[in-house]
Amino acid sequence: MGIRIGIYGYGNLGRGVELAIRQNPDLTAVGVFTRRDPSTVKTLTGLPVYSVEEAKKMQDQIDVMILCGGSATDLPKQTAALTALFNVVDSFDTHANIPMHVQNVEKVAAAAKKTALVSAGWDPGMFSLARLYSNSMLSVGKDYTFWGKGVSQGHSDAIRRIEGVADARQYTIPVQAALESVRNGENPHLATADKHERECFVVAKEGADLARIEQEIKTMPNYFADYRTTVHFISAEEMKEKHSGLPHGGVVVRTGKTGLNEEHSHVIEYSLKLDSNAEFTASVLVACARAVFRLNEGGVYGCKTMLDVPPTYFSMKNRDELIKELL
Amino acid sequence: MGIRIGIYGYGNLGRGVELAIRQNPDLTAVGVFTRRDPSTVKTLTGLPVYSVEEAKKMQDQIDVMILCGGSATDLPKQTAALTALFNVVDSFDTHANIPMHVQNVEKVAAAAKKTALVSAGWDPGMFSLARLYSNSMLSVGKDYTFWGKGVSQGHSDAIRRIEGVADARQYTIPVQAALESVRNGENPHLATADKHERECFVVAKEGADLARIEQEIKTMPNYFADYRTTVHFISAEEMKEKHSGLPHGGVVVRTGKTGLNEEHSHVIEYSLKLDSNAEFTASVLVACARAVFRLNEGGVYGCKTMLDVPPTYFSMKNRDELIKELL
Repeated sequence: MGIRIGIYGYGNLGRGVELAIRQNPDLTAVGVFTRRDPSTVKTLTGLPVYSVEEAKKMQDQIDVMILCGGSATDLPKQTAALTALFNVVDSFDTHANIPMHVQNVEKVAAAAKKTALVSAGWDPGMFSLARLYSNSMLSVGKDYTFWGKGVSQGHSDAIRRIEGVADARQYTIPVQAALESVRNGENPHLATADKHERECFVVAKEGADLARIEQEIKTMPNYFADYRTTVHFISAEEMKEKHSGLPHGGVVVRTGKTGLNEEHSHVIEYSLKLDSNAEFTASVLVACARAVFRLNEGGVYGCKTMLDVPPTYFSMKNRDELIKELL
Repeated sequence: MGIRIGIYGYGNLGRGVELAIRQNPDLTAVGVFTRRDPSTVKTLTGLPVYSVEEAKKMQDQIDVMILCGGSATDLPKQTAALTALFNVVDSFDTHANIPMHVQNVEKVAAAAKKTALVSAGWDPGMFSLARLYSNSMLSVGKDYTFWGKGVSQGHSDAIRRIEGVADARQYTIPVQAALESVRNGENPHLATADKHERECFVVAKEGADLARIEQEIKTMPNYFADYRTTVHFISAEEMKEKHSGLPHGGVVVRTGKTGLNEEHSHVIEYSLKLDSNAEFTASVLVACARAVFRLNEGGVYGCKTMLDVPPTYFSMKNRDELIKELL
């Protein structure tokens, strides 16, 4: 039956994990663990649903628990607590707090002889790997990250809190001229606001003052004031039809120099274009669960990140196949 | 003085390694080893030059030997032989023979408690890593590799062998329409000739029959006949001025599907744009030398590839810094 995976939390990410496991024949989903009343939760593929309290009784049925809670309040507590019982994977993405998170989980994992892989996904995650490799291969150079085109939930929520707004969706979009300048090796100095623009789709409540809403959006400090911001008012129908997906993506670029007088330029670019942010992140977590299982089997305990894992560990295929087919 | 590196072979790649080491303060170049008379070889930065025979007497002065010979005849013999004496890195790139090469080197390395990292560079190498990660993260999908824009030495040499040709340079160029189709997730079926076109710059000898040369190029089996091929006749001066560099690069794309009914598409793209093929490859080999040294220090012996190495091992920075800065 392969590697047995538990799914802890069942929002967008948990559903993505459920679906991703189906695409990986060496993995089996054991079930979903929820804080809600399990009888009220129906899974997409008919997976059994358990209360989070039942998890600790199921240690011998689960090889790796994938934690699908949020970074704000869930994971800072859950990851360390569950690492005492299970090998785990999480997607903790509050960048500034990652070092502390790694330290906290490390203590528990080492003592329990469990393996945890934290802050997995695409940023942090695949983008971090892209930065690490390109920095290692081009020691003299400059890094750039562009996010988008994609929906920012935080910015969408900020617009929804404005009086007169019924619904909103905000897309973060890389500024093409800035991206081209980077790709051409011009090494521009770019603040975040120079690299991104913000496009907002807003459904206004009946009779609302559109000019005031647009003004409030465009002058909102931190979120919009520093950015080139466009506001479109649309109907609820159009919102549902054209903006219900949660696409995202981005580009990591390193430009570097080599040569006797640094006369040669090189550009390394890694980019993602994702129809579903949650489903792609889930696919990454699932590959990480495979790696965690193998690390633990090999006696490698403690808190790891994607930066620590030998790449072959993520793959369904064995090393001989990978060398033959990919190298 | 850091990790002590020997450079075995002093062509374009060896010179690139010499220069790359200068950009990595934790590495020191010990010297160059050559089959030529050392007194006839002058290094770019004044490194000492030794005869290859002297290498075996210098085991205690060199932590990692970077082999800069060719894949056709040098590396199949040199890598295994030198692994008996040193930790080594090579760039063996005859794709079909890599599994056998790994096996041959493995035996020697394990017996000598040395660490070898073979087939490093960008393809095989960074492109292989890009394929491995994207395949692991998107289990259901399709892979594409485009090479170029870049100089193909093999194709340039083939043109130079035609009667009446004084000099030639051939650029392999990705077909933009094919690349766009891939990027748009259309999953086209593409043969190598559908993905690339060939642009040739030729200096003809005086009085040569240009029409015949062009015809011979365009009908040359394997090399050109299947490809859209363009031929430009230029002067020796223009060749020297505009085509003396050896740029290269390429793009690895994986397109994949997720979702309940595979309704979401994702595109992962990794691309390189390199002014100097040899200098970038050398920069990769140098990061690999660092990794090899650390693996050997940690008691990991045998023949490795870039697919086997924990990414943090390639970096000058320590793990805490990498987690803080890149994750």
